[in-house]
Amino acid sequence: MERLEQQFAFIQEIDKEKFIGRQTYVTGAKRKENDAEHAWHAALMTILLSEYANEKIDVLKTVTMLLLHDIVEIDAGDTYAYDAEAKQTQRAREEACAERIFGMLPEDQQEKLRGLWEEFEARETPEAKFARAMDNIQPMMLNAATDGKAWEEHGVHISQILKRNEITKEGSGALWEYALQHFIRPNVEKGRIRE
Amino acid sequence: MERLEQQFAFIQEIDKEKFIGRQTYVTGAKRKENDAEHAWHAALMTILLSEYANEKIDVLKTVTMLLLHDIVEIDAGDTYAYDAEAKQTQRAREEACAERIFGMLPEDQQEKLRGLWEEFEARETPEAKFARAMDNIQPMMLNAATDGKAWEEHGVHISQILKRNEITKEGSGALWEYALQHFIRPNVEKGRIRE
Repeated sequence: MERLEQQFAFIQEIDKEKFIGRQTYVTGAKRKENDAEHAWHAALMTILLSEYANEKIDVLKTVTMLLLHDIVEIDAGDTYAYDAEAKQTQRAREEACAERIFGMLPEDQQEKLRGLWEEFEARETPEAKFARAMDNIQPMMLNAATDGKAWEEHGVHISQILKRNEITKEGSGALWEYALQHFIRPNVEKGRIRE
Repeated sequence: MERLEQQFAFIQEIDKEKFIGRQTYVTGAKRKENDAEHAWHAALMTILLSEYANEKIDVLKTVTMLLLHDIVEIDAGDTYAYDAEAKQTQRAREEACAERIFGMLPEDQQEKLRGLWEEFEARETPEAKFARAMDNIQPMMLNAATDGKAWEEHGVHISQILKRNEITKEGSGALWEYALQHFIRPNVEKGRIRE
């Protein structure tokens, strides 16, 4: 029973991901979403959009990566994509949390899940690149659907978006092109994203 | 591009699942969770606990089922597990929503995803049974972690829990046994679940 106790301790602990707020507004723009909602959305997007990956991907592996990619924010907090200062300490804060939270699991699962998180962070495999693309396109889609409110609030520049999304292109050229035309360009034209 | 437009219209529409409230309290018991948070949690549980399935399961299929099992509640609303009156109209309300929401997708994905939802509802395959077990154990775990608050508020009887969880046993005898010993029994003893 020890194995199952460790697994359920982890399952209970990660409930706290539901408290980690993000900067993206949900439909209607009355509140922002949290990490668990974001992970759910990005995982389901993967199932629907994997056909557009630049390279063939293992869908279960990519979905698993996305379901757990923000678990380290339970201790480290969400680091806003365009907050340069917080970005400097992000890696160290998240490493410490990975050590603690994945450390609650039985050794084999600890290794497997932490390995997937590290793979996501390293951005090198087709799965990591596609997961990054989902992680970026999901908030872009919602920002566009909420009239660019989050972009305006943070005074986001198009140059920041283009830089961040170099990895999106590497995951899926087709989806990046779609996002650029449908989510980004119209909001630059309307002045909600700065030039 | 028409295919991708349909897919993104669906992806934007399902954002509304984040507004569908459930009766389960999250850690700290200050608020209840929503369907998207619940689906994220149950999907990740599947990845961790699939080794305990009574029959071998296809993990990606089961995870996909769980990620989308509550989408029909966007129109139909959440039907509380122990609300006998609402249960009577649940199927018709959910069928209508399935028709509308899955109908937004390209035909092949419409068929595939709606098929998975119907499979979940029918409770016959190993994947559907295991997904049902996750769908039941996730709130049980949280109810236990929040001192049985949701059970007390609704005056839930142990007989109701045992009846609902006949399907949990069919998905995983080992996990049901664990849940019974760790989540249910102690709360019957403390009077939070009625006898």
